[in-house]
Amino acid sequence: MTVLEESQEASVAVPVVEFDTHPDRYRHWRLDVDGDVATVTLTVDEDGGLVEGYALKMNSYDLGVDIELYDAVQRLRFEHPEVKAVVMTGGLEKMFCAGANIRMLARSSHAWKVNFCKFTNETRNAIEEAHESGQTWIAALNGTAAGGGYELALACDEIVLIDDGSSTVSLPEVPLLGVLPGTGGLTRVVDKRHVRKDRADLFATKSEGYRGATAVDWGLVDATVPRNAWDEQIGRRAREAAAASQRRSGEGITLTPIDRTEDGDTIAYPHLSATIHRDARRVDITVSGPTDEPPASPVEQGVDWYPFAVARALDDLILRLRTNEQELGTWVFRTQGDVDKVLAYDAQLGDLADSEADAWFVHETTQYLKRTFKRLDVTSRSLVAVVEPGSCFAGFLAELMLACDRQYMLEGVYEDVDPDADPAVVVLTVSNDGRFPMGNELSRLESRFWGHDDELESARKRLGERLDAQAADAAGLVTMALDDIDFEEEIRIVLEERASLSPDALTGMEANHRFVGPESMETKIFGRLTAWQNWIFIRPNASGPDGALRRYGSGQRGSYDYKRV
Amino acid sequence: MTVLEESQEASVAVPVVEFDTHPDRYRHWRLDVDGDVATVTLTVDEDGGLVEGYALKMNSYDLGVDIELYDAVQRLRFEHPEVKAVVMTGGLEKMFCAGANIRMLARSSHAWKVNFCKFTNETRNAIEEAHESGQTWIAALNGTAAGGGYELALACDEIVLIDDGSSTVSLPEVPLLGVLPGTGGLTRVVDKRHVRKDRADLFATKSEGYRGATAVDWGLVDATVPRNAWDEQIGRRAREAAAASQRRSGEGITLTPIDRTEDGDTIAYPHLSATIHRDARRVDITVSGPTDEPPASPVEQGVDWYPFAVARALDDLILRLRTNEQELGTWVFRTQGDVDKVLAYDAQLGDLADSEADAWFVHETTQYLKRTFKRLDVTSRSLVAVVEPGSCFAGFLAELMLACDRQYMLEGVYEDVDPDADPAVVVLTVSNDGRFPMGNELSRLESRFWGHDDELESARKRLGERLDAQAADAAGLVTMALDDIDFEEEIRIVLEERASLSPDALTGMEANHRFVGPESMETKIFGRLTAWQNWIFIRPNASGPDGALRRYGSGQRGSYDYKRV
Repeated sequence: MTVLEESQEASVAVPVVEFDTHPDRYRHWRLDVDGDVATVTLTVDEDGGLVEGYALKMNSYDLGVDIELYDAVQRLRFEHPEVKAVVMTGGLEKMFCAGANIRMLARSSHAWKVNFCKFTNETRNAIEEAHESGQTWIAALNGTAAGGGYELALACDEIVLIDDGSSTVSLPEVPLLGVLPGTGGLTRVVDKRHVRKDRADLFATKSEGYRGATAVDWGLVDATVPRNAWDEQIGRRAREAAAASQRRSGEGITLTPIDRTEDGDTIAYPHLSATIHRDARRVDITVSGPTDEPPASPVEQGVDWYPFAVARALDDLILRLRTNEQELGTWVFRTQGDVDKVLAYDAQLGDLADSEADAWFVHETTQYLKRTFKRLDVTSRSLVAVVEPGSCFAGFLAELMLACDRQYMLEGVYEDVDPDADPAVVVLTVSNDGRFPMGNELSRLESRFWGHDDELESARKRLGERLDAQAADAAGLVTMALDDIDFEEEIRIVLEERASLSPDALTGMEANHRFVGPESMETKIFGRLTAWQNWIFIRPNASGPDGALRRYGSGQRGSYDYKRV
Repeated sequence: MTVLEESQEASVAVPVVEFDTHPDRYRHWRLDVDGDVATVTLTVDEDGGLVEGYALKMNSYDLGVDIELYDAVQRLRFEHPEVKAVVMTGGLEKMFCAGANIRMLARSSHAWKVNFCKFTNETRNAIEEAHESGQTWIAALNGTAAGGGYELALACDEIVLIDDGSSTVSLPEVPLLGVLPGTGGLTRVVDKRHVRKDRADLFATKSEGYRGATAVDWGLVDATVPRNAWDEQIGRRAREAAAASQRRSGEGITLTPIDRTEDGDTIAYPHLSATIHRDARRVDITVSGPTDEPPASPVEQGVDWYPFAVARALDDLILRLRTNEQELGTWVFRTQGDVDKVLAYDAQLGDLADSEADAWFVHETTQYLKRTFKRLDVTSRSLVAVVEPGSCFAGFLAELMLACDRQYMLEGVYEDVDPDADPAVVVLTVSNDGRFPMGNELSRLESRFWGHDDELESARKRLGERLDAQAADAAGLVTMALDDIDFEEEIRIVLEERASLSPDALTGMEANHRFVGPESMETKIFGRLTAWQNWIFIRPNASGPDGALRRYGSGQRGSYDYKRV
């Protein structure tokens, strides 16, 4: 029996994970809104774990807790545009949050751990990014923030720790568990909080952590506040942040339950459908373009406004497929619809930037699309775009194509199917050159033409043009343009070959190719930090039968192979 | 039995690895110098493997082959300052180099693979960096360059492929072996050669690779040349590169055999000694300062010139300890000697920059020190500096201290030992602020004070000053300054605690903390790419009993778990 099999055996059956929830159904968080300040309070239901077999003690979390947090983040962006400061605090005494539940981690398969960490990382990034939209998050640590609990605080703009003589911030993963603070912890301590690296080293190896003057002096927290001044000072910080905010506001929209139907191997949303080909280890995803002209006021349409509806469906689909369908290694993206109608909606993303009623919603939707495209960038699946007659890869929908690892475009039409069809075109807009930056701050066009400024400039000159296969190929926008005699055969071979390769090697390869050029804190977290954590997760020192993760809580320390590699 | 144990069991006993060699003893490379152009020719001795059990067919390599290449790189820098262009080519027909030997990889332990790849990466970086010193490397691929063979070419400044109708460049690791082109391959293809990411994806999944117009058009090679024009065109390229070079030249020095003695658990060089404490899993390393004033002409001293001798000894020690002593997880650095004499040598690194006879040697030594300090940055060991009375952490020797994860400095003296000693001082110079940039292009001072420009400026104002423990602490240069009542006890606890932690977690933690701020191609290779490769190396899909690496050559493909994680 291998280490891995043992590890997987130790895990219990995992459910199909749903990402839909609502504050009325939260078991772990409470969301309170008071004017322009909101408070999210963590009081984890010990018995509310997503999977059987562990109790979520001391405000520790599992994926289910984070799904609620993500829901709260989204509602604060869309239902509450009036909220300009968010206080994150805990509902227990002495313990703000103990981080990811260790028994859950110890019982989980490697794939579950990795996927859990990815979603957690993305939610931390979404919290961090809210600041750019004028929403400041303040971590009001009313007790100890340990491990993932402190990493949650690190995603906030400010961190305040209660001065009660005992509460600390800590990253005990290395000394206690033999793994990393891998949800951004190591990176944000030095790259965001600017803690000196030798102090970061002390901090990450001292299980009990720091408090008081040292925590402030080193930059681990922004302030410590005694209990008798707590409410007043947290309130003051929140009000000051809200007062300084430039957040564009208006009437919020209601995030009604997502409209999703599942029928056998098909998952369908109003503008999106996915068909699973289980034997081929592939899923075909088709985005349908809008069927109507854009409305005068997007905010009146709310969740049904096309760009928002597409972002939301795509977000949900990505999360479900990543979590529930690990064997579907290749995602094939197609679009179908009217290019002009897509472009009309695409134009609204820019045109309504100053509209009094709609600006906030258009801005938030743009940010939501950005985050959703970024989810694709860090998705460990091969992404292939197929561009055929009837498709509408234009503007923000063309981002889907550019996010893919490869792009195949039919030259001309399928003569046997519809000889009178119009050949496919691709249309780039500013949506492809700055509106949706990747994690490394490059646009997907800049990323594509990295090191080839001449080609980038050429592509920029063609924004708005309808590029047929030949033109798209000449402009470097597609991997291959083939006529219908070769096209289907080529696609078939490509997808079969892809499905035959080692998923691990593909994951590593794609993670390297997709992030050419500069790195940011965000890409360092998904690249350097996550890759190391994944390596450590699978090593016997952590996850073997005698590893620290597996032994945690047993009273025995991990038994280590002391060889360095 | 676990996957890992099986994998280790499959490996045969490995020897103590020596890094000393000489062109007269090369078994795999030939080094020819003709005026300002040198040629290094790879003709691997199939039976010359470093370890038993595999034949180095088709110019495939193992660590022993790379040790010779590194020796050649060093001799071209120091023995042949007149060489301004280096042609790297192969001595076999049809096959330039098939990359790392697969049977060797399949039989190796995880630790051996990782260490082998690290050294290989460092040698590739040394080749790439030669260009900055006016030495252009040209890969003259007279046959197929596959996998690590192409990665070797990628480290060169130019790549020329023979046009013989069959020779290709390829990265077959993903499709054939289920691992990554992890010695810089994926990163250099997109970040250095600027191959578009979708083409890079095609390339890295197509085992037979590319040649001809496609290889040139995509940027995989700079040119293809038919056999009848081969010698002429390669010669012309080399002469043109040499003619354009600004390399400072002079009489070369002779790299005499390194002066190293081993006595039980002590390894000693003229200015460096290391004492192994096996039970404590620690090695104590002491650098002795110079005992004389610097000579008028460093080049006349040659290998004995203090900065060169220290770099060389340190380089050798790092490589030996990393490869042969994996259980020594903590390296403790001390210095002892005369601060003023160190500073006198340190000044020569700047003062002789324009000296006609010595400039080239001083420059090359500076670069060598830079590369050696960078080896420390990527060494997977905990590095601790201990600063005591009699130490000489000044100028370039202070870089050792700053490269460490922590710095402990005694305040005052050991009252019981030598109450009349002078308390320790630390002296920073320009050597710590730009002369030896890290892989991310930051000086170690910039790295230390990342995000704290005020503290950086304060430290810069104190260059040249003798900073006692209190001053060094106030300037942020040491982790802790303690008096002798607490000092020894603190060090003892620190080292014991460190030795008790999971080596994997420490390796991941240190790799993240040491590279704050921006990333470069070099740090991306050691961070993102290497971390992914290490993860893949240990996954059953590659290294399990049915994994692709283990099955290679058996006629059976790897049997994969198709779950993505």
